Amino acid sequence: MVQGSSEKRHKVTIIGSGNWGSTVAKIVAQNTKEHPELFHKDVQMWVYEEDVVIPESSPYYDPAIGTKPQKLTEIINAHHENVKYLPDIKLPDNVIANPSVQDAARDSSILVFNLPHQFFDKVCSQLKGNIVPWARGISCIKGVHVDKDITLFSEWIGEALGIYCGALSGANIATDIAQELQCQTTIAYEPPLVDLDNSSTEIQRDSRARAAKTQLVPAPPEYPPLDCNTFKNLFDRPYFRVTMVSDVAGVSLGGALKNIVAVGIGFAAGRDQRPGLHAELIRLGMVEMVNFCKEFFGETFQTDTLTLQSAGYADLYVSCHAGRNFKCAKMAVEQGCTVEEIEARVLNGQKLQGNSTAREVNTFLKARGVEHKYKFFKAVYDILEGKESDKDLYSLITAE
Amino acid sequence: MVQGSSEKRHKVTIIGSGNWGSTVAKIVAQNTKEHPELFHKDVQMWVYEEDVVIPESSPYYDPAIGTKPQKLTEIINAHHENVKYLPDIKLPDNVIANPSVQDAARDSSILVFNLPHQFFDKVCSQLKGNIVPWARGISCIKGVHVDKDITLFSEWIGEALGIYCGALSGANIATDIAQELQCQTTIAYEPPLVDLDNSSTEIQRDSRARAAKTQLVPAPPEYPPLDCNTFKNLFDRPYFRVTMVSDVAGVSLGGALKNIVAVGIGFAAGRDQRPGLHAELIRLGMVEMVNFCKEFFGETFQTDTLTLQSAGYADLYVSCHAGRNFKCAKMAVEQGCTVEEIEARVLNGQKLQGNSTAREVNTFLKARGVEHKYKFFKAVYDILEGKESDKDLYSLITAE
Repeated sequence: MVQGSSEKRHKVTIIGSGNWGSTVAKIVAQNTKEHPELFHKDVQMWVYEEDVVIPESSPYYDPAIGTKPQKLTEIINAHHENVKYLPDIKLPDNVIANPSVQDAARDSSILVFNLPHQFFDKVCSQLKGNIVPWARGISCIKGVHVDKDITLFSEWIGEALGIYCGALSGANIATDIAQELQCQTTIAYEPPLVDLDNSSTEIQRDSRARAAKTQLVPAPPEYPPLDCNTFKNLFDRPYFRVTMVSDVAGVSLGGALKNIVAVGIGFAAGRDQRPGLHAELIRLGMVEMVNFCKEFFGETFQTDTLTLQSAGYADLYVSCHAGRNFKCAKMAVEQGCTVEEIEARVLNGQKLQGNSTAREVNTFLKARGVEHKYKFFKAVYDILEGKESDKDLYSLITAE
Repeated sequence: MVQGSSEKRHKVTIIGSGNWGSTVAKIVAQNTKEHPELFHKDVQMWVYEEDVVIPESSPYYDPAIGTKPQKLTEIINAHHENVKYLPDIKLPDNVIANPSVQDAARDSSILVFNLPHQFFDKVCSQLKGNIVPWARGISCIKGVHVDKDITLFSEWIGEALGIYCGALSGANIATDIAQELQCQTTIAYEPPLVDLDNSSTEIQRDSRARAAKTQLVPAPPEYPPLDCNTFKNLFDRPYFRVTMVSDVAGVSLGGALKNIVAVGIGFAAGRDQRPGLHAELIRLGMVEMVNFCKEFFGETFQTDTLTLQSAGYADLYVSCHAGRNFKCAKMAVEQGCTVEEIEARVLNGQKLQGNSTAREVNTFLKARGVEHKYKFFKAVYDILEGKESDKDLYSLITAE
């Protein structure tokens, strides 16, 4: 099918409107304007409704309203700014805030997920049966769900809604991107075979997602193909360069496992600032991330996703320099206290992902009897648990 | 052959005694003491003889000699310290400084090369015909020789002397290692088929070195095998962890091409300190390094050498944080002058490898008509030449 020749256009909905969700909404809405041959201009953004007070110092303060609480959706739609979660950044006027997730997603063929984990079950149950059956998802949510098994968030969403869901991850700091500072990202998108007829560029490989193929409904031919090119056009900006890959596991696990490594680099940095030491530890962390993905997601994982894409090495690098897992672990060593004490003191009720991921991954590895093969992950876990001292980190990791 | 059962032992010679050469001599001499089943204890170190004055403040000052110049070899052998190139570090007493390269290398079956490029031809012509014909070399020299073709230093040495020569490279700062601070390195060593009988662990792969196989003389059976295990035992220390690989090209090119990337990161850092930008640029530099090795050394290159070994990513990281190519390029941007001006002002007559490698690689790529495929290398070259501005670096590299 020749691009631009389709009768219909894709409607796009962003599910979630925090700092990162609002940033992604801005990018997507800039692109739907630029690609009228592919997308409806208006982008719906589901906003978890809350009351917000506009202070007198704000340019949006209205003396007629005063400091009476206002609905966040109404503020966003009136002023084109998410004053609570992405202040001082103008959103394109085609971002439409909507307090109803069902209404926001209605008739959308592209759903972009960007919400906290704890909202997953509720949102998915509200959406199930109320979305376009051939819709496609992209999960921008970092992390994975670990219990007895490891579930990628894209798998979780895809299975809950009966759709294919890809993943976006990279060395992406929302505030930088919102200001249009140069940045790159990786999108993993490999829809299974079922609607091959509708797409010329989709890569076919063995994939977990293929297991869900019988549930997938092909897109009608009157729409532009839901292929890699369409998704690249939806996300790529001059300041936000997208590389498309097919490896959803690598992209998702890169964004999760890096947090364990960042805690380890923080421990090291608390005692020793030598770049040579940091370089080797980051490298050894990357080796372990690659080994983990090969062992547990070997059927689809491609090493290059971690070693050469933004979602892998570049994201790890940023987390090991500027991320809060790194910073809190470093402070813990410097101040001679536990990471939990730092977390409680400086994170204002929020939790470090590195700690929980280190614990979940350790439980997972122990259950499989392979904890000993992952010395970096084990060392970070043992130090967090108080079983080992942070000063032994390097020797624990490099023991033969 | 069971280790330790051989009648004879390998004699080891270090060719070169600068900062890095003396550091490697220290490591090697510690290991020959610990492995009497493999090596002669004494390690010869060839020293380019020069006169050195011991100042009165030195612990080695002898009032009987006063400030009369003394031979560097005599000082090293008397005090077990290279006072000129590795001051304040004790060398093991089994490092024997020798001003004659022929005498130092006589009867040695292992030659470790660690000397400036400009000495190559002279030293090789002195050694040719005067070494054990089945000797093996390891080149610890960073960089490659580029003219119409690219020659790895290990190839150059190997061809000049008719021996097999491997390569050692990594995120190695001589002063850190001399102080026994934790560090890692990579040794590429893949001797060709010819003496397979003498070794059980040598990996066999297609290799440029195999072309030289007819010239190679096998080691006599009364010696321990010259295999990966022997070389690991010669270099690995608790503070200097060695990984053995077979990819000489990857190890050698990692140490050369990283300097071009480090100049680029320096240009970027002069204007913008965002970790996200540095992470992406280092990643894009690594992608280009991998592509270069694949295109020109595809028959032996393995991507993991650059992406997962110390000689690749970790070395690049250190160079992009603490290396002088990085620092000088950053200063040039900050001070609004050329890199050559900074070089002349701060390097005391020494030259930046990044500049010369960028120029040589550009000539090489241009001659092959593929300059446009290497946007990072081209951008650095064009900025060094004054054809482009450093402020356009990112857009030059990411242009589609």
